[in-house]
Amino acid sequence: MIFASDNWAGAHPDIAAGLSAHAGGFSTAYGDGALDQAVYQRFNETFEREVAVFFVATGTAANSLSLTTYNKPGGISFCHRESHVIEDECGAPEYFTGGSRLYAVDGALGKIDPNKLERAVGRFAPEIVHSGRPMAVSITQSTEVGTIYTLNEIARISEVTKHHKLPLHMDGARFANALVALDTTPAEMTWKRGIDILSFGGTKNGCWCAEAIVLFDLDRAGELAFLRKRAAQLFSKSRFVAAQFEAYFKEGLWLDTARHANAMAARLAAAIEDSPSARLAWLPQANEVFAVMKKAEAGRAQVAGAAFYDWHKPHGFEGHIGEDEALYRFVTSFATTGEDIDSFGNLIAG
Amino acid sequence: MIFASDNWAGAHPDIAAGLSAHAGGFSTAYGDGALDQAVYQRFNETFEREVAVFFVATGTAANSLSLTTYNKPGGISFCHRESHVIEDECGAPEYFTGGSRLYAVDGALGKIDPNKLERAVGRFAPEIVHSGRPMAVSITQSTEVGTIYTLNEIARISEVTKHHKLPLHMDGARFANALVALDTTPAEMTWKRGIDILSFGGTKNGCWCAEAIVLFDLDRAGELAFLRKRAAQLFSKSRFVAAQFEAYFKEGLWLDTARHANAMAARLAAAIEDSPSARLAWLPQANEVFAVMKKAEAGRAQVAGAAFYDWHKPHGFEGHIGEDEALYRFVTSFATTGEDIDSFGNLIAG
Amino acid sequence: MIFASDNWAGAHPDIAAGLSAHAGGFSTAYGDGALDQAVYQRFNETFEREVAVFFVATGTAANSLSLTTYNKPGGISFCHRESHVIEDECGAPEYFTGGSRLYAVDGALGKIDPNKLERAVGRFAPEIVHSGRPMAVSITQSTEVGTIYTLNEIARISEVTKHHKLPLHMDGARFANALVALDTTPAEMTWKRGIDILSFGGTKNGCWCAEAIVLFDLDRAGELAFLRKRAAQLFSKSRFVAAQFEAYFKEGLWLDTARHANAMAARLAAAIEDSPSARLAWLPQANEVFAVMKKAEAGRAQVAGAAFYDWHKPHGFEGHIGEDEALYRFVTSFATTGEDIDSFGNLIAG
Amino acid sequence: MIFASDNWAGAHPDIAAGLSAHAGGFSTAYGDGALDQAVYQRFNETFEREVAVFFVATGTAANSLSLTTYNKPGGISFCHRESHVIEDECGAPEYFTGGSRLYAVDGALGKIDPNKLERAVGRFAPEIVHSGRPMAVSITQSTEVGTIYTLNEIARISEVTKHHKLPLHMDGARFANALVALDTTPAEMTWKRGIDILSFGGTKNGCWCAEAIVLFDLDRAGELAFLRKRAAQLFSKSRFVAAQFEAYFKEGLWLDTARHANAMAARLAAAIEDSPSARLAWLPQANEVFAVMKKAEAGRAQVAGAAFYDWHKPHGFEGHIGEDEALYRFVTSFATTGEDIDSFGNLIAG
Repeated sequence: MIFASDNWAGAHPDIAAGLSAHAGGFSTAYGDGALDQAVYQRFNETFEREVAVFFVATGTAANSLSLTTYNKPGGISFCHRESHVIEDECGAPEYFTGGSRLYAVDGALGKIDPNKLERAVGRFAPEIVHSGRPMAVSITQSTEVGTIYTLNEIARISEVTKHHKLPLHMDGARFANALVALDTTPAEMTWKRGIDILSFGGTKNGCWCAEAIVLFDLDRAGELAFLRKRAAQLFSKSRFVAAQFEAYFKEGLWLDTARHANAMAARLAAAIEDSPSARLAWLPQANEVFAVMKKAEAGRAQVAGAAFYDWHKPHGFEGHIGEDEALYRFVTSFATTGEDIDSFGNLIAG
Repeated sequence: MIFASDNWAGAHPDIAAGLSAHAGGFSTAYGDGALDQAVYQRFNETFEREVAVFFVATGTAANSLSLTTYNKPGGISFCHRESHVIEDECGAPEYFTGGSRLYAVDGALGKIDPNKLERAVGRFAPEIVHSGRPMAVSITQSTEVGTIYTLNEIARISEVTKHHKLPLHMDGARFANALVALDTTPAEMTWKRGIDILSFGGTKNGCWCAEAIVLFDLDRAGELAFLRKRAAQLFSKSRFVAAQFEAYFKEGLWLDTARHANAMAARLAAAIEDSPSARLAWLPQANEVFAVMKKAEAGRAQVAGAAFYDWHKPHGFEGHIGEDEALYRFVTSFATTGEDIDSFGNLIAG
Repeated sequence: MIFASDNWAGAHPDIAAGLSAHAGGFSTAYGDGALDQAVYQRFNETFEREVAVFFVATGTAANSLSLTTYNKPGGISFCHRESHVIEDECGAPEYFTGGSRLYAVDGALGKIDPNKLERAVGRFAPEIVHSGRPMAVSITQSTEVGTIYTLNEIARISEVTKHHKLPLHMDGARFANALVALDTTPAEMTWKRGIDILSFGGTKNGCWCAEAIVLFDLDRAGELAFLRKRAAQLFSKSRFVAAQFEAYFKEGLWLDTARHANAMAARLAAAIEDSPSARLAWLPQANEVFAVMKKAEAGRAQVAGAAFYDWHKPHGFEGHIGEDEALYRFVTSFATTGEDIDSFGNLIAG
Repeated sequence: MIFASDNWAGAHPDIAAGLSAHAGGFSTAYGDGALDQAVYQRFNETFEREVAVFFVATGTAANSLSLTTYNKPGGISFCHRESHVIEDECGAPEYFTGGSRLYAVDGALGKIDPNKLERAVGRFAPEIVHSGRPMAVSITQSTEVGTIYTLNEIARISEVTKHHKLPLHMDGARFANALVALDTTPAEMTWKRGIDILSFGGTKNGCWCAEAIVLFDLDRAGELAFLRKRAAQLFSKSRFVAAQFEAYFKEGLWLDTARHANAMAARLAAAIEDSPSARLAWLPQANEVFAVMKKAEAGRAQVAGAAFYDWHKPHGFEGHIGEDEALYRFVTSFATTGEDIDSFGNLIAG
C-alpha cells in the first residue's frame, strides 16, 4: 500500500531486462552509440517529426536545462504557483540560468489560468531594463495535483506565449499518464499545440533513471549540447538510459504502464468514495488522487502500512476541510496492484 | 579490440544482475531508502571511518560539486594542466561555482609537481582582493595518463595544501585502478594522506552509472546536500545507484575488475614492447597504455577493428616522436579480454 | 516642477564643492586613502559603533551585495512584493547570488506585514533540500510608496527574522528621509532594531554617486571585500565617493537635505489636498507623494511642464480610482523649491 | 613623487570644473538625459562612426561586461598571461559570465604573440562539448607593462580572431596613452583594425570615475543594456559620468593629459638612464616605466618619499637582475610634474 510517490517504485521488469540485455559489448560513449541513435530515431517516430533528444539524470535537470535553453539576462519564466520547478527543485532553474526568475501564476488545481498568464506577462515591457523581461512559460502535464490540461487548454496557453513571442516548455514528468488519459498522441499534446521544449519523464512511469529533453526547436540543439555537458548531465555510458527507453517504447510498454497507474488511481478513487471517513477532494485525472480524510483514520491507515503524505491546499480548491480532517495525496504507478488498492479500501471502509 | 576508453564498456554482469535484483518493491526516494543506507554503511567500512556519501550522475558532477563544496568568491583551484577538470568538463567546475578559476600546475606525466604547486599557491596573498585567492587543490588518481601518485607523493601534496590551509580533492574516476596498483587501502590512499573530499568513480570500472562524492570533512555534509539538489544531481530512484554499488563492493568485485583491467594493460604493454612498429611512451601503472606508433601502422590497426585515440604529448614526456609517428592512448577495462589483447598484438606484430 | 524622481536632481552645491576640493593631490587607491579612512570613521560615529563600510556604484549593487553576503545554495530572501529589489533591479540580486530567490511578501503600503512574513518563512523547513531554504529578509526604509516603518515595526520584523535565525537587510536608498521623519538616530533605526546590513544611499539625497553598504555583522567584512571586488564595484579613485560623503555628513547636511525634501513633499501634499481635481491617495511620510488625479488634469499639468509618473496601485490601497482618474507619484528632493510646488499647485488649483 | 599608479591621482581641474558645472538642474535619469545624449554623440564623432556607449563604474566592469556580451556556455576567452582581466580582477570576468574561462596566452612584454594565439585557439574544436570552446580574444592597449601594439600588430591579432570567427575586445584602461604614442586616431586603433568592443577608460587619464564600454557591434547593444543593468552598473545620475567625458573630450583635453603623462614617463626614463644605480628594464612606450634598481637605492628613494612598487618579471623580459636588485614599476599621469621627476632624478643620481 505504497502511495507515497511514483518514484518509490523500482523498475518495471521489462525495463530491468532491457537494461541487462545491453550490459555486454562495447559502445561509443557520450550518447553517440548505435543504441542511442536508434532510440533517438524512436523518439522521432513517437513525435512524428524530427526532434533533438538529450538524456539527463533527473527531471529537475530536464526542467532547468529546458529553461536555460531560452535564458536571457533579466529573464523571467512564468509557471504555476505550485509547479515542481518553483516548489521542489531547490532553485535549480535559477541556478542553472545564473539568476533568472520564476514568476508564479495562479490557476485552479495546478493549471495556469491563461488570462492570469496574459496579465502577468503583460505587466512587463520587454525593452525596459529595470523590471527584467519575460523569457519563457512552463506548464506541467499532468500537473502536480493530478489534473490534466486539455489539448484546447494547451493551445490557449500557447496563444498567449506566441503573442508575446515566448517559448513554451512542458514539464512532462508524468507525460504518459496525461497522454493516455487524453487518449491523444505525443505530437498532438506537444508541438502541434505550440510546445517548444519538453521534459520527457520515464522514471516515474517504470524506468530506473530515464529522463530526456525533447527539443522541437532544432536550431537550439547545438547550444543545448554545451549546456548539458557544462551542467555535468552528459552520461558517459549513455547506453544505460537508451536501453531503458528502448524497452519503454517497445510494444507500447510506456502506455501500458501509464494506463495501469491511471486505472489504479481510478480504483483508489472509488474506494475513497465508498469510505465513510474519506472523500475525494477533486476528481483524479491521471495517477494522483487527493482525498480529504479524518486525521485519525489516516493515521490508523498509516500505522497499518499505507504510505501517503498530507498535502497543502492547492489554489482553486474550494472544498471544506474540517478541524479533524486533512488533505492527503496518493500516487499510483505501474507497480501498484489491485490488491494494494483493495487492502487500503478495506482499511478505510469502516 | 576496443581500447578507446573504459567508458565504452557496458556493465559487469554482477552489476547488471544486482540492479535487476532490486527492480521490484518500493523504497523511499531521494537516497533515504534501506538499500541506500546499507550502501552508505558499506562506504564507511570501506574507508574505515564515517564518511558522507552523495551519489551523483557523472564524474564531472562529482568533481564540480566537490570543488563547489569549498567555493569562495575569487576562489582559485589548483589542478594539473592535463587534468580532467580543466580539459574535459566544458567548464563545469567554473559554472558550478559561479565563476571560480582553475589554475593549471605542471608536473611530469599527469602528476602535480609539489614544488610547482607550492610556487603557484604561494603567488597569491590570501587577503589581496585583486588577484583572487586559493580555494582548493585537486589531484587525479590514477591520472589521465595512466600514472599513479605514491602514498608519499599524495602526502607531499597534502603538506602543501595543509600549509596553505586548503582542502585537497581527489578525482578518483579510476580510483580502484590506482588502489590495486598500489596494493593499499582506501583509507591509506585518501583521508590518511590528507584528502578531504573524493570523487569516487564506479562507472569506468564496471558500473552503468555509479559515481559518488565521498566527503571526509563531515561538517560540510549539510551544505553539500543542498548543493547536490540545486545542481539537479539528486536521483529520485537513488536505489538504482545503490544497487550498483552494493554489487560493486560485494566480495571485492571492484578490486577484481580493477586488477583485471590493470593486468590487461600490462599485457597490452608487453605486446607493444614486442612490436617492431610501436614502443611504450612511458610505463603504464594502471589501465591506460600510451604508445608511440607509426601512423601508418596505427591506421592499419584501426581499419582492422582496433579502437584507440591519438593523444597530445603530456608535460614531462621527453621521448622522441618521429615525423611518421604519433602518440596513442589505449584504455583497458573489466571487459577487455586476453583475446582482444592478443588479436591486437598480432596486428602490430608485423 | 520635476517630480519624476529624486534621482533627476544633480548634486547639492556642497557636495559638488566637496568633491572639487579633493580633486588635487595623490591618494592611495581602492579605498585605502586617508580621506576614505576618515569617512569610515565618520560612519562609525554616525552609527555610534564600529561598522564596516563598502562604497559601491549603485543602490542595486548595495542591495545585491548585501544579500550575497548571506548567500546560501537554495537560498530564499523575503522582501515586500513592491520592493525595489524585486521590481526594479533586473534580477541583479538573483544574478549576484548565482540564483537565489526573492520571495514576495505582502503588506499594506509598501511595508511587510510581520505576520505574513512569519507565515512565508514558516512554510520552509530549513533542512528539506527540495524546497530551498530561507536566507535573508529585506525591508525598505522609507518604502517605495513613501511610507515609513516605525521603530517598533522594524523591531517586530526583526523578531521574526531572529526567530528564524535570518539576517535582516535594510534598503536605505531613502534612509535619511525616513530618519528625519522619525526624528531618531541611525543607530536606533538600524542595529539597535536588529538590522545586520544596510544599503546606505546618498545619491537620491544630494550626492552624485554615493552609495555604501554598512555592515554591522563585522565577521563578514572580509568576505564582503572579495564579493565587492569580484562584482566590479571597487572604485580605484574611491576618494571621489569619500569626498561626497565627507560633505554629506558635514554639519548635518544630509539631514537638512532630507528635511527639505520631506517638507517639500508635505507642501505638495497640501497643494494636492486643496485641488478640486486631485486628492492624496495616502498620507506621505517622507519625500514621495501619491495622488489620485483626473487623467485630463494630469495630462494638462504635464504639458505645462510638470514631470511625474503614473503608478500601479500598491497592495493595501483601498481608495477608489474613477474611470477618468489614475494614481500618480510625485517625488521631491533637496533640489525641489517652494516655487516648484507653488507653480504646480497653481496648475491644479482650477 | 607618486609613481605608484595613475589611479592615485585625483581629477584634472577641468574635469572637476565640468562636473561642478552640471551639478544644478534636473535631468532624466539612467543615461537618457540631454547631456548623456550629447556625450554619446561625441563618442560617435571621436570614433568616426556610430557606436553604442555604456557608462560603467570600473574598468573591471567594462572588461567583464565586454566579455559577457559574447558569453557562451563552455566559453573560453584568450588574453595575455599578465593581463588585467586575469591578474587583477578577482575573477570578475568569470563571475559575470557565470563561469566562462580565461586562457592565458604568452607574448613578450605584455603583448599577445599572434602565433601563440593561433595555436591556443586552434587547440579547440568548436563543436566538441568536452573541452569547451573559444568565445573571445582580449588585448590590452597600452599593456600592463607600458608597451603598445602597433596598428599592424592589432591587425595581425584581428586576423587570427576573424579566422576563428571570434570577437576581439580591447582593454583600453590606458587607451589615450597608446593613442597619442602611436599618433593615430581612435577609429584606426579600434574598429578599423577589427576591434568589436572596447573598454574605454577615462579614470586613469584625469577623470574621477569615467569608464565606458564602446560597442562597435551594434546588434548586441540591446542585450548589453540588460547585462549592464543586471550587473548593477547602470548609474541613476548618469550625468555625473557624462559631465566628466564632456570635459574630457573638450578641446582635446584627453589627448593633452595623455601626452603629458607619456612625456613625464620619457623624462623619468631619461633620469633612470642617467642614474648609476638604475637602468631601464625595457623602453617605455606610454606612461609606465620599468626599471631595474638596487634594492637599497629603491628603499632609500621610498623612504625619501617616492612611491612605486616592485613588480614581477614579465614574460619576454630577458634582462639580468642581480641579487641585490629588483624590478620596479613607475607610473606617470596628468598630475605628474616635472618637479616630481627631477626630485626623483636627484634622489637616484648617485
